[in-house]
Amino acid sequence: MTIRKCAAQPPTPQTVSEAHRRLKERSPLVHCLTNRVTINVVANTLLAIGAAPVMADHPQEAADVARQAGAVLVNQGTPSDHQIEAMHRAIAATGEVGVPWVLDPVGAGALTLRRHWAEELLAHRPTLLRGNAAEVIALGGQAEGGGRGVDSARASAEARDAARRLLARCGGVAVSGVQDRLVARADNDGRACPLELRLDGGSAWQARMTGSGCALGAIAAAYAAVCDDVVGAMLAAHVHAAAAAERAEAHAAGPGSFAVAWLDALADPALDLAGFAEQRLVTEWLAGD
Amino acid sequence: MTIRKCAAQPPTPQTVSEAHRRLKERSPLVHCLTNRVTINVVANTLLAIGAAPVMADHPQEAADVARQAGAVLVNQGTPSDHQIEAMHRAIAATGEVGVPWVLDPVGAGALTLRRHWAEELLAHRPTLLRGNAAEVIALGGQAEGGGRGVDSARASAEARDAARRLLARCGGVAVSGVQDRLVARADNDGRACPLELRLDGGSAWQARMTGSGCALGAIAAAYAAVCDDVVGAMLAAHVHAAAAAERAEAHAAGPGSFAVAWLDALADPALDLAGFAEQRLVTEWLAGD
Amino acid sequence: MTIRKCAAQPPTPQTVSEAHRRLKERSPLVHCLTNRVTINVVANTLLAIGAAPVMADHPQEAADVARQAGAVLVNQGTPSDHQIEAMHRAIAATGEVGVPWVLDPVGAGALTLRRHWAEELLAHRPTLLRGNAAEVIALGGQAEGGGRGVDSARASAEARDAARRLLARCGGVAVSGVQDRLVARADNDGRACPLELRLDGGSAWQARMTGSGCALGAIAAAYAAVCDDVVGAMLAAHVHAAAAAERAEAHAAGPGSFAVAWLDALADPALDLAGFAEQRLVTEWLAGD
Repeated sequence: MTIRKCAAQPPTPQTVSEAHRRLKERSPLVHCLTNRVTINVVANTLLAIGAAPVMADHPQEAADVARQAGAVLVNQGTPSDHQIEAMHRAIAATGEVGVPWVLDPVGAGALTLRRHWAEELLAHRPTLLRGNAAEVIALGGQAEGGGRGVDSARASAEARDAARRLLARCGGVAVSGVQDRLVARADNDGRACPLELRLDGGSAWQARMTGSGCALGAIAAAYAAVCDDVVGAMLAAHVHAAAAAERAEAHAAGPGSFAVAWLDALADPALDLAGFAEQRLVTEWLAGD
Repeated sequence: MTIRKCAAQPPTPQTVSEAHRRLKERSPLVHCLTNRVTINVVANTLLAIGAAPVMADHPQEAADVARQAGAVLVNQGTPSDHQIEAMHRAIAATGEVGVPWVLDPVGAGALTLRRHWAEELLAHRPTLLRGNAAEVIALGGQAEGGGRGVDSARASAEARDAARRLLARCGGVAVSGVQDRLVARADNDGRACPLELRLDGGSAWQARMTGSGCALGAIAAAYAAVCDDVVGAMLAAHVHAAAAAERAEAHAAGPGSFAVAWLDALADPALDLAGFAEQRLVTEWLAGD
Repeated sequence: MTIRKCAAQPPTPQTVSEAHRRLKERSPLVHCLTNRVTINVVANTLLAIGAAPVMADHPQEAADVARQAGAVLVNQGTPSDHQIEAMHRAIAATGEVGVPWVLDPVGAGALTLRRHWAEELLAHRPTLLRGNAAEVIALGGQAEGGGRGVDSARASAEARDAARRLLARCGGVAVSGVQDRLVARADNDGRACPLELRLDGGSAWQARMTGSGCALGAIAAAYAAVCDDVVGAMLAAHVHAAAAAERAEAHAAGPGSFAVAWLDALADPALDLAGFAEQRLVTEWLAGD
């Protein structure tokens, strides 16, 4: 069972800067089984934030590598049958050794086969699920995801109920978008109650750069490796990505220079994550079960 | 049958800016079955020009995705047997629903197996074929392509006859190079006659950046999704790429910064495509059949 | 048998600038069978230094392409069973026609299956082996590589004996790291004696950019295509990479802009390789057999 404990209480801006400090200190090994389109971006993102990526998806070595890792990322952007087999083996290994794993259900919002794959992966209870609104809606049980290819035609607010429902199948749900919505459980007067964190900010260029979503999944995996609770890991990841995106936008003349400046900003050890969270984070308890 | 109608008359600079306007407005979904080397560049290029890439080449989903797309790109840069099967399924689906598709026969100019693959794909009559001179010469029936690896040792002028001949097997042929040559049919006093558009310009850095050719194939697919005629789509794509390359060169200190600046320029909604075409386009009727 | 002759005498700074001149003049075709993570970086690196990359790893064409190439790169970063088969076919072809080949044993320092693959490839006697300290130690016969994922926890100095031992199985060993150590044989008073070249310099950003090691393997293959001796090729490659990295660091605000500036610097035909080698190269005879 790989789902970690819920937060004792909702995370704060200080929780975020503390997680950032631990990430830089420990440099966790993040095992990625991810897609061909953005595999280079994912590796560079992990190196930029101070983690150590290892991309190993041969079925014969996936379990071995997962056992050595601080966290595992499973991103179904372009799977082959062999890679899917490797994903299942890696996930089984995380269960044996208690390593957290992140599911990024790319394309589940619009493409039938992707939804099928994502459902099979979800059955193994990821530590956290990160997707766009269409993907979360498609998996959370509504009839139609509202995706278009691998993109979402829906805002994150529309995925709120689906995310809430998915808490029965994973430790936390991050719905990335113009506004990020992070749903998990935290202690509320002795009961583990559903909680939503909303985060504004980031840059419109993120949607014009391939891999910004995949990179977020990887950042979330890196933070899951150094955080005890799911909600803290999700928040630190989304704050880190969004704060870096805002800084990058100031240096960008288009999506090409944005991607470069984003990596630079992600790597800045002095990026002020607590200050960003202070201004942009809204925390709200959701209706209980 | 997926070949679209020939142009009623040769395209003009205004046709190009009109196509650009439609591309930004409709943001077509472009389904790419493409190579591992430049898949990230292809996705970023499509996002930069305002299209929506979806990379899906599992044989089980290729047809489903192709049916949802505005256009399909088939690039044989690094195929596996599974990917080739997915290509054939996607192509069959385009035929059922009338979606245009672009063939990029990477390596057919020098490598035996690539020429074989390209011939099999060509048999399904692509809407347009985009390649370098060596590839077009190899497929247009001459004995030797004159390729070296995936590069061409020939100028586009040498591919003129081969391109002319290939019109029997596809809707239009784009020979990219220092000078681009676009061959298709247009109405000439009531007869569909072969026509050549020549375009100068671009940047020498394009040849020093991997994926500039693959990106051109993707841009052509995006324009094919929003243009009724093949020749207009080919022209808009090559003007867009070349105008952006010229602007990028002014900001580049080498191939690394060129690639970044090219994406920035491709994404500029105000890039003056009509003005570029006005200066650089030469249109010529070819000898009839 | 593809191992080329040892150097008649140790290479000098002038040997390096002479190799650079030949590389720009001949633009060798470099056949790469390499990993998905950094395949784009490898291709761009080869284009930047003036070589012509061709990425072809279908088992049916690997031998055909290798026979046409000036050198072959085998990088086991993310192999499938099909790619491994293609690697073995390409290597067999190099033996038939006398083309040099480079082995990059990615991950052999920490991952069991990678060490197994690397041992099988090594059995075919690469012209040169390029890896990090952990990989070289793991293959050179010590018990533990000291790797962590695909990274090394060891300094290149610790790999000295292992590199020395590996000379029995390949023409030369390059241990890349903060300090590069290049081990091969050269003529010492009529006997082919082991020699170590040490090179300081480069940039700490190289370790924060995915593919800097893979790119070094590709640069080494390109120089092997234009150099008669292994040690000269290894030295030219490491000097070229390190000199470009130092220049790039001066333009970099982080790992994103470093990667861009590195490609720009690699492509500068006037990059002063002899001057860099003059300042940073230390040559030492090792104890004989």
